[in-house]
Amino acid sequence: MKVGGVPRRTIWVEGDGRSVAIIDQTRLPHEFVTLPLATVEDAAEAISVMRVRGAPLIGVTAAYGVCLAVRRDPSDGAVDAACEQLLATRPTAVNLRWALEEMRAVLRPAAPAEREALAYERAGAMADDDVATCRGIGEHGAALIAAARERAGERVVNVLTHCNAGWLATVDWGTALAPVYLAHDRGLPLHVWVDETRPRNQGASLTAWELGQHGVPHTVIADNAGGHLMQQGRVDLCIVGTDRTTRTGDVCNKIGTYLKALAARDNDVPFYAAVPHSSIDWKLSDGLAEIPIEERDAREVSHVQGRAADGRVVEVAIVPEGSPAANHAFDVTPARLMTGLVTERGVCEASEEGLVRLYPERRRP
Amino acid sequence: MKVGGVPRRTIWVEGDGRSVAIIDQTRLPHEFVTLPLATVEDAAEAISVMRVRGAPLIGVTAAYGVCLAVRRDPSDGAVDAACEQLLATRPTAVNLRWALEEMRAVLRPAAPAEREALAYERAGAMADDDVATCRGIGEHGAALIAAARERAGERVVNVLTHCNAGWLATVDWGTALAPVYLAHDRGLPLHVWVDETRPRNQGASLTAWELGQHGVPHTVIADNAGGHLMQQGRVDLCIVGTDRTTRTGDVCNKIGTYLKALAARDNDVPFYAAVPHSSIDWKLSDGLAEIPIEERDAREVSHVQGRAADGRVVEVAIVPEGSPAANHAFDVTPARLMTGLVTERGVCEASEEGLVRLYPERRRP
Repeated sequence: MKVGGVPRRTIWVEGDGRSVAIIDQTRLPHEFVTLPLATVEDAAEAISVMRVRGAPLIGVTAAYGVCLAVRRDPSDGAVDAACEQLLATRPTAVNLRWALEEMRAVLRPAAPAEREALAYERAGAMADDDVATCRGIGEHGAALIAAARERAGERVVNVLTHCNAGWLATVDWGTALAPVYLAHDRGLPLHVWVDETRPRNQGASLTAWELGQHGVPHTVIADNAGGHLMQQGRVDLCIVGTDRTTRTGDVCNKIGTYLKALAARDNDVPFYAAVPHSSIDWKLSDGLAEIPIEERDAREVSHVQGRAADGRVVEVAIVPEGSPAANHAFDVTPARLMTGLVTERGVCEASEEGLVRLYPERRRP
Repeated sequence: MKVGGVPRRTIWVEGDGRSVAIIDQTRLPHEFVTLPLATVEDAAEAISVMRVRGAPLIGVTAAYGVCLAVRRDPSDGAVDAACEQLLATRPTAVNLRWALEEMRAVLRPAAPAEREALAYERAGAMADDDVATCRGIGEHGAALIAAARERAGERVVNVLTHCNAGWLATVDWGTALAPVYLAHDRGLPLHVWVDETRPRNQGASLTAWELGQHGVPHTVIADNAGGHLMQQGRVDLCIVGTDRTTRTGDVCNKIGTYLKALAARDNDVPFYAAVPHSSIDWKLSDGLAEIPIEERDAREVSHVQGRAADGRVVEVAIVPEGSPAANHAFDVTPARLMTGLVTERGVCEASEEGLVRLYPERRRP
């Protein structure tokens, strides 16, 4: 998508075919800064402190992290160490594991001398595949938005989203926002309610920013507001991302997603997750019991970063000294609360039956 | 309750019997500052910009605002103008209207020369009545916490609360937090999950502060986190305040309350509102249709105030320039989602039948 009119991806290989660079998302929305990743340590740090975030982008960044490791040392030991280091950065998104398993599967049978080229080739394909996947989700989701518009009587369609599952969370297009961009580009009048998404404010800082850059009408709201808006009939459709989806359709996503799904159900508002294949964990069937929920630094709750009146970006404390804070980063929305899942292969019911109808190769024998 | 070991109320009359003073709650938790209110304009400004807030305290502050007006000019016209000005400050809390009607009823029949003394007497009685009411709510609510402890198998009881319905929202004790203080003072081991309560962060800035001052164990969480904690069995009981309760038991409270009530229902967690008589609007029977929801300045969403590393309190922007924000301050939790209402007369079902059993004088003929 475009930044200041210039098409951008969130991660790319420079002209030398080997150096990797990213948009440093911790600086948004106040500053647009790109950052080179020179080593696997750089890649791990970028994932860990959330310079890159969003399940699909985490996966692709990890793949490039393996490339950077192999470039330095193509041995089995170096590949294994890189994968271990990268896997330890974030526990919840399954795309990370998926991407590292893909890279290992490609590199292990190859001779060390061939590995660097193979790694970059596979990581590049993974990035392109992510773009195509998101575009597919966009097409299927745009049809849902069009249907919502018909139900809404041809007025502006109000879409609510949580956190950032836009192009900044992927390589391009986004998952939850791909349908929004496609529908908007095709002239369908829509407006997005953007949950600010405390504690890290990815909605206010990233989703609002990327929608604004693309010219999509939107309004930032406190995370507390969505239920009220649904009660008042001001939300036609909810679409969120996912960090890990079980084969039974439970959706683990940014903390607070579950609350919006409850409100959607209570007010008959359709609630969808945009699910790329890479975020489905086919090994799991009970999201609440089986998905590890990352606990992050309490400082993300007790402090907020923003731009002061003098233009400087500063961090301020909002909690009294001595009051502890807790920071659970994700929650699980049970399949029963999802209207459906939007995948690159189509829309399905949030259930094992629904998913394996689209992914028959995953049907249990 | 105590601040730095010294017992305090949130509003008081100075030694001269006429000057009124408050704690300026916009300065908490970073600074403890008291502020004189010299005129009705001061009182209206304090309510409007939320130097005082919380439905019961808004009511008592409005009553003292009438005192200050009468002190300057005891005529009918001045009383009416003062009531009108004060009523216009905040639309949602019904205590404001209730307090002003009380003051008018006392002042109208009296000769102008007697009004100043009468006004201060009635406002003082209203403040004392608020303390007694809160204390009553505390007794009845403490029994619910004790019952939750039995269900929890004698371990620490985890209470979740939203916004600030503590002593800072009243004259003393609080509504939702009065049971917490009483149970804690009596040695019942408890811990409070404090929703930060965006956009104004009254949970993080006021509830955490007053619980900390009183030594009650607590943890600040993002508003998004409560559903996850309930799914994990880490909440035994929710207690919130109310700005207006219909005769049918619908509870209008700080935006986001409805989402927590939905999560509590989905996880079989008891969900109570602490309801002083002054916050019941006996004229209303449909909270969703009939209660006006205040929309406040979008800047409360787009900007956050906190303490910078150098100790200064500053405001920072967290939303990109050009992105609009919306700020609905309250939502309505339908009676069907409430386990019960905790009043100064006892606990009842959230229904007309439940309420009129405790307030038989309100039964419709």
